[in-house]
Amino acid sequence: MRTMDAEPMRPVGPGGTIGILGGGQLGRMLAMAAARLGLKCAIYSPEPESPAFQVCDAHVVANYSDTRALEKFARSVDVVTYEFENVPGDAANVLSALKSVQPNPKALSIIQDRFSEKSFARGLGIATTPFALIDSQASLEAALPVVGVPAVLKTSRLGYDGKGQQIVRTADQLAGAWDGLKRVPCILEGFVDFTRELSVVAARGADGQTACYDLVENRHENHILRTTLAPAKASARLKTEAVQIAEKLLDAFDYVGVMAVEMFETRDGRLLVNEIAPRVHNSGHWTIDACAVSQFEQHIRAVCGWPLGDTTRHSDAMMTNLLGEEAGSWPALAAEPATAVHHYGKGEARAGRKMGHVTRLYPLGTRPEE
Amino acid sequence: MRTMDAEPMRPVGPGGTIGILGGGQLGRMLAMAAARLGLKCAIYSPEPESPAFQVCDAHVVANYSDTRALEKFARSVDVVTYEFENVPGDAANVLSALKSVQPNPKALSIIQDRFSEKSFARGLGIATTPFALIDSQASLEAALPVVGVPAVLKTSRLGYDGKGQQIVRTADQLAGAWDGLKRVPCILEGFVDFTRELSVVAARGADGQTACYDLVENRHENHILRTTLAPAKASARLKTEAVQIAEKLLDAFDYVGVMAVEMFETRDGRLLVNEIAPRVHNSGHWTIDACAVSQFEQHIRAVCGWPLGDTTRHSDAMMTNLLGEEAGSWPALAAEPATAVHHYGKGEARAGRKMGHVTRLYPLGTRPEE
Repeated sequence: MRTMDAEPMRPVGPGGTIGILGGGQLGRMLAMAAARLGLKCAIYSPEPESPAFQVCDAHVVANYSDTRALEKFARSVDVVTYEFENVPGDAANVLSALKSVQPNPKALSIIQDRFSEKSFARGLGIATTPFALIDSQASLEAALPVVGVPAVLKTSRLGYDGKGQQIVRTADQLAGAWDGLKRVPCILEGFVDFTRELSVVAARGADGQTACYDLVENRHENHILRTTLAPAKASARLKTEAVQIAEKLLDAFDYVGVMAVEMFETRDGRLLVNEIAPRVHNSGHWTIDACAVSQFEQHIRAVCGWPLGDTTRHSDAMMTNLLGEEAGSWPALAAEPATAVHHYGKGEARAGRKMGHVTRLYPLGTRPEE
Repeated sequence: MRTMDAEPMRPVGPGGTIGILGGGQLGRMLAMAAARLGLKCAIYSPEPESPAFQVCDAHVVANYSDTRALEKFARSVDVVTYEFENVPGDAANVLSALKSVQPNPKALSIIQDRFSEKSFARGLGIATTPFALIDSQASLEAALPVVGVPAVLKTSRLGYDGKGQQIVRTADQLAGAWDGLKRVPCILEGFVDFTRELSVVAARGADGQTACYDLVENRHENHILRTTLAPAKASARLKTEAVQIAEKLLDAFDYVGVMAVEMFETRDGRLLVNEIAPRVHNSGHWTIDACAVSQFEQHIRAVCGWPLGDTTRHSDAMMTNLLGEEAGSWPALAAEPATAVHHYGKGEARAGRKMGHVTRLYPLGTRPEE
């Protein structure tokens, strides 16, 4: 699949302006990476207290359904990108009629829907968790024999960090679970006997060149990423396979920008794609401190038509999220050796809210496993 | 010397606001470092097109003589710092009556004047280049026997990158050179037979703790820094001596923040202090990419009462300034391996103007000397 952009990519050099949809920590870190390159950022967000507003050249507070505001925004920037996968399709279309939107809206629309995302991967011969679409009584009944129990029922669109999900332990729980999700289109995913979650943060430039950061291992608590270990302890075969999966997806989507691919490693050593994120990703935050070019800068480079940066890791790293009140531990964290502390400038430290992260650096080959 | 602040230092944590005087690339990189820590920045600058405005939460365009604007600014922030040593003393006084100003105005006022700066260093037993004050016909005549020729006549205040300087090759040129500098108070500095310029970027926290980055070697072209090599190839004795000089100065000034000390190494292996910069410094830019905590974050940590960060170098580095039109070479530079490209968001690429820099990283112990 090769899509054509509304407007061919011309490099956006220092002094140019990038429009970013979304003003959370990812938009904030994208804006900071863009600033390093001498690029200005304009942030578009419906939230008046968006953390990214604190570090950008211009910002707009408006809804994603506000066509006039979107058009004005598109005219004020050189290229448009986004920090989150749930950009409404209509908004992407309004913007892409006026400016290059990267990653391209077609890739975005496929990845936004869990069923089309997984079908797309499977169509490329990439192994995924077992899955089935549930959007009718008939598909509900057909799903169980394919997927089996236990399984997880997820809304096919929206939802993150475990929101919009129901666990289905026995066959008779499925109908009730779907009722619980208001019978919106859902995807039923089979439980996989996996040993761990891995991810690759990969990028593709406007010239079709690709570059991947090292395969990493992710550990979750309560469905929220807690720690990323870079690099993952893994065989050369596994690392190569993970990179091949990411590159196959990037090329098939005619993708420009950074993409994260979350994978399960099964007990018998296979990789199953769990989720694709069409954006910079929490499991790539370690690259800010352990690589010459971070995932954020890499994304900015790609969408601006710059050469991709070197993804070589100069240090091993362990990234730990600071959730809710944990952000208050900054005085102790700041005193640790070889540790980079990051706070996102968010106001209220609600339980489970991602307030910041710390990256601990280790000389190559010396990172502990815990 | 121990000075007392107008207001005792209380830590400024995430969510707090730092007021920065000056909106150039140093203010910009300070603001970006503050943002990493979840701190907001307000930038005060007389220049409407200040590069730092693009990355900060708030900014004020006003002159440093505008008392009302300064007072309003001080009330809007939690602590005040600056990116340049020529902050007018009156402005520092207005601000410090309302908020903690760090580094403290007393240190600033000593360092602002080349004669008092060098006298202060000498008073601590620190070797400097030979120097004498010229502020009258009598002192003009007394200076030559002390300093000798060739020498450099510099205005005692203001001036940078070779501006406000006259070379005096023979004794009879001195009077004319002083006329050329409009007979303002000047310092006559003897030429030193030095082999190279070295510098230490050092910091002192609100608790009196100090931390130094590795000694580096600086190479100039046309009085402007071209390249910094980190670390400098130097004996352990020389490195220790440089750190001791920096620490002695930090303590004597009761300093809080980052200070750079430029030194000459003489042919016989002695260190002579050439200049003290009461701020982050061009010769410390490599720390952004080669240390977990950069000089910019270190300065922010110090003035906000945080623990100082680890100054350990994880990589060797070579920093090269991009002057004037050289900034246009970003497509080639961005394609280099292990290279971090930095642009300052400045509009016009005037000849010799610092537009950005690149830092090339090397595994420890592998950096070439050129």
